[in-house]
Amino acid sequence: MGAIHVTVWGENRHEQVEPKVAEIYPDGMHNAIRRGIEARLGGRATVGTATLDEPEHGLTEEVLAGTDVLTWWGHAAHGEVADEVVERVHRHVLSGMGLLVLHSGHFSKIFTRLMGTTCSLRWRSENDRELVWTVAPTHPIARGIPHPIVIPAQEMYGEQFDIPVPDELVFISSFTGGEVFRSGCTFSRGNGRIFYFSPGDQDFPVYHHPDVLQVIANGVEWAAGDRSRRELPAVRRHDSGDFLPSTAPTAP
Amino acid sequence: MGAIHVTVWGENRHEQVEPKVAEIYPDGMHNAIRRGIEARLGGRATVGTATLDEPEHGLTEEVLAGTDVLTWWGHAAHGEVADEVVERVHRHVLSGMGLLVLHSGHFSKIFTRLMGTTCSLRWRSENDRELVWTVAPTHPIARGIPHPIVIPAQEMYGEQFDIPVPDELVFISSFTGGEVFRSGCTFSRGNGRIFYFSPGDQDFPVYHHPDVLQVIANGVEWAAGDRSRRELPAVRRHDSGDFLPSTAPTAP
Amino acid sequence: MGAIHVTVWGENRHEQVEPKVAEIYPDGMHNAIRRGIEARLGGRATVGTATLDEPEHGLTEEVLAGTDVLTWWGHAAHGEVADEVVERVHRHVLSGMGLLVLHSGHFSKIFTRLMGTTCSLRWRSENDRELVWTVAPTHPIARGIPHPIVIPAQEMYGEQFDIPVPDELVFISSFTGGEVFRSGCTFSRGNGRIFYFSPGDQDFPVYHHPDVLQVIANGVEWAAGDRSRRELPAVRRHDSGDFLPSTAPTAP
Amino acid sequence: MGAIHVTVWGENRHEQVEPKVAEIYPDGMHNAIRRGIEARLGGRATVGTATLDEPEHGLTEEVLAGTDVLTWWGHAAHGEVADEVVERVHRHVLSGMGLLVLHSGHFSKIFTRLMGTTCSLRWRSENDRELVWTVAPTHPIARGIPHPIVIPAQEMYGEQFDIPVPDELVFISSFTGGEVFRSGCTFSRGNGRIFYFSPGDQDFPVYHHPDVLQVIANGVEWAAGDRSRRELPAVRRHDSGDFLPSTAPTAP
Repeated sequence: MGAIHVTVWGENRHEQVEPKVAEIYPDGMHNAIRRGIEARLGGRATVGTATLDEPEHGLTEEVLAGTDVLTWWGHAAHGEVADEVVERVHRHVLSGMGLLVLHSGHFSKIFTRLMGTTCSLRWRSENDRELVWTVAPTHPIARGIPHPIVIPAQEMYGEQFDIPVPDELVFISSFTGGEVFRSGCTFSRGNGRIFYFSPGDQDFPVYHHPDVLQVIANGVEWAAGDRSRRELPAVRRHDSGDFLPSTAPTAP
Repeated sequence: MGAIHVTVWGENRHEQVEPKVAEIYPDGMHNAIRRGIEARLGGRATVGTATLDEPEHGLTEEVLAGTDVLTWWGHAAHGEVADEVVERVHRHVLSGMGLLVLHSGHFSKIFTRLMGTTCSLRWRSENDRELVWTVAPTHPIARGIPHPIVIPAQEMYGEQFDIPVPDELVFISSFTGGEVFRSGCTFSRGNGRIFYFSPGDQDFPVYHHPDVLQVIANGVEWAAGDRSRRELPAVRRHDSGDFLPSTAPTAP
Repeated sequence: MGAIHVTVWGENRHEQVEPKVAEIYPDGMHNAIRRGIEARLGGRATVGTATLDEPEHGLTEEVLAGTDVLTWWGHAAHGEVADEVVERVHRHVLSGMGLLVLHSGHFSKIFTRLMGTTCSLRWRSENDRELVWTVAPTHPIARGIPHPIVIPAQEMYGEQFDIPVPDELVFISSFTGGEVFRSGCTFSRGNGRIFYFSPGDQDFPVYHHPDVLQVIANGVEWAAGDRSRRELPAVRRHDSGDFLPSTAPTAP
Repeated sequence: MGAIHVTVWGENRHEQVEPKVAEIYPDGMHNAIRRGIEARLGGRATVGTATLDEPEHGLTEEVLAGTDVLTWWGHAAHGEVADEVVERVHRHVLSGMGLLVLHSGHFSKIFTRLMGTTCSLRWRSENDRELVWTVAPTHPIARGIPHPIVIPAQEMYGEQFDIPVPDELVFISSFTGGEVFRSGCTFSRGNGRIFYFSPGDQDFPVYHHPDVLQVIANGVEWAAGDRSRRELPAVRRHDSGDFLPSTAPTAP
């Protein structure tokens, strides 16, 4: 098949109002992520970006229909994301669009909507060193990733992380303070594949870390799934012996 | 610990408007389920009921606070369940209340809210025989259950059943027409345990079937979990070296 | 990376002694499987075969070292497979070689060795129709596979199938008699990926069925994993702060 | 049902030859574990012990037939455990006997036989502090367990831990050096339940730690499973429509 169409979504607010963040990410975290994917996937992906302050947050029906994998970073402004756009993204994920949720995106409307839980956690932003250990060595997302990834300074995220049991637990992180976190988790929802990856805070240059970017690139390829199909699961009545899809969804 | 406090929730509409259903369940499906649990758990459970047409659907804060396990059957009137009550039940499940979702409850607001998916499926109501096979023989919900349970006539529910991958797949059903269905599935969400069990349609006397009632009674005991604790997972900041719960949840 | 190196292993005994089987598979089931993979993967795979009656069953250290994915079909002569060869295959799987175990291979020495269980099941060979339903629609092994696959006549395999809980349950089958079976299951063991797929009996032309062959071809691509690495997991002592692989495995 | 019959198996060699270990465990680690279970389960369990140097290692057919849950600690003398006894324990586990494997028991013959993998890991014995975090808050084994358990000094066990993906991941540990380990894992094999729990080294007084002993007591209750039944899964032929167990296992 052709290139994977990726849309990197960024809240892009910290970068505009906090000089410290702007210094690390002069053109926004979303562009650092975009470049990281482009550099690693080359012709296997075409990558665009979208941000909160664009009309419809840059996530129109047309954009989503043309997106194979969406990546999501948000933090300070989760509440400003329009419910209508969240429903649209939700529908596309269940229909087969891949989704990568990054770091503080754990508290985004789209992630909590997909998980059904609070997605709350333990935290501290105090320059902890994060080590990211692989526990699923056969998983495609772990290919070529050092064991462990060493991130010199990061926000601490710790358990209890209130998510459903992941389909696959790929990475577990530890922090200087001794906390642990399920930092790389996959989920299937409907016909879509979701990867949550926690490293990446606005206050640290984590999206310039080559291993972190490699995980994200691997995650994009994994989440792309079967791009020949984009269909929302629906209720269908079938007569006995009729195994073909019926022409239209029905109510039970 | 003392007896498990169970609340059996029933939509209780079909029984009022359809003579055929009223004949099978003269005092409602919820009372058939209640009696089935009482007969099997004896002094280990105290069982009450609540229905859609009661104020707040019978699910006030006080009722839920005193409920260890809630069972849910709904079908024709999912849309009439107040969103406020759904949020309340959702909060109690994430805080540790057990939940059994029965049959057409797959499409209830509370189940789709907890699952994050459409929960759609394949169906046909044509007197198929259902066989319920155990695939997790060590699971407490399967104790004392014949392999298979034979249900002479039932509505067919078939795959694709659009749910997250269950934590544990306990039962798989087949139907006369050859369809299969993941008919017994457990999920953990927050601090709560959820069991979905599909046999049970208003048009057939399934809630008089002793094996079906035994599964429900087993499910109640399994879902009761750790009744010493009812707490919603919350975001908490911890200093390095501080492992005790901090006094108050905080925002990251 | 280059083509996936596949070795199709066949017991190849029924084909020699039973005219009925020889008629269906004149040059052996292994060659039917080989051609099915070649036709579907084209230049993405190079496929060889090996059989029980070759020296070392055709599975020398050199052959296995050059094999990315091994497929295994055996039935009447499991006991004739040399323990030494089983240990060799086991070591290569744990080191990263992919393995597809087909049909009656459930009782092979290599599969029971990897699973740790009896791998026993319910069975009947009476021309049951088998329907193979997809329950993991986002899995690469399910891509392009009809829902369900219809196999007009097959041996029945039913639950209880005594295997560990699969990492991923991809397919569930039903049979004319109403039995169900977890017919498509993935497992990770060590650095290797394993796919068990049950359709395929010597008495029926199942390995001429295009959908069955497509599943096998998909399974080969999935199981190939990360071919840049072939390493047995080993015990290693690490000093505090030493995260690099130490030079040699050690005993704890 | 009556009390759970527990057999605590100990290698009991370090205690005899190393004064440091004998000082911590004057009558052996197995007796410390036995007392810990007795103190916590009271009349709900009767606990015996067995050790390597007894005839048949104290694990005769009669002893195992009367054991609901076996706990296993071994280290220096895994190789001295007779294969015949390992096969006997294996058969009883698959038939429904619960098994707790403790610490260095990861390398025992019985555990590697049940897992099918190398069970190798990363290690260092240098007084690391171990923190044991709960990641399955609804699991019965986690009831009443602090989050985290703090163990002042322990041998470090780290990932890659070469085990199959656990059915349920209950605990994750971190160590002073930053390593992480899946320290509490459940598995079902056949009709038996297995719990692996890693804290507990002969050089540290870990089996005097009240939280560690509480986990072990919880694990015993969880692993006891359905004690009304002790049966090895077997191959059985069934005619179409015959769902009852046939009288005798058969070969396919």
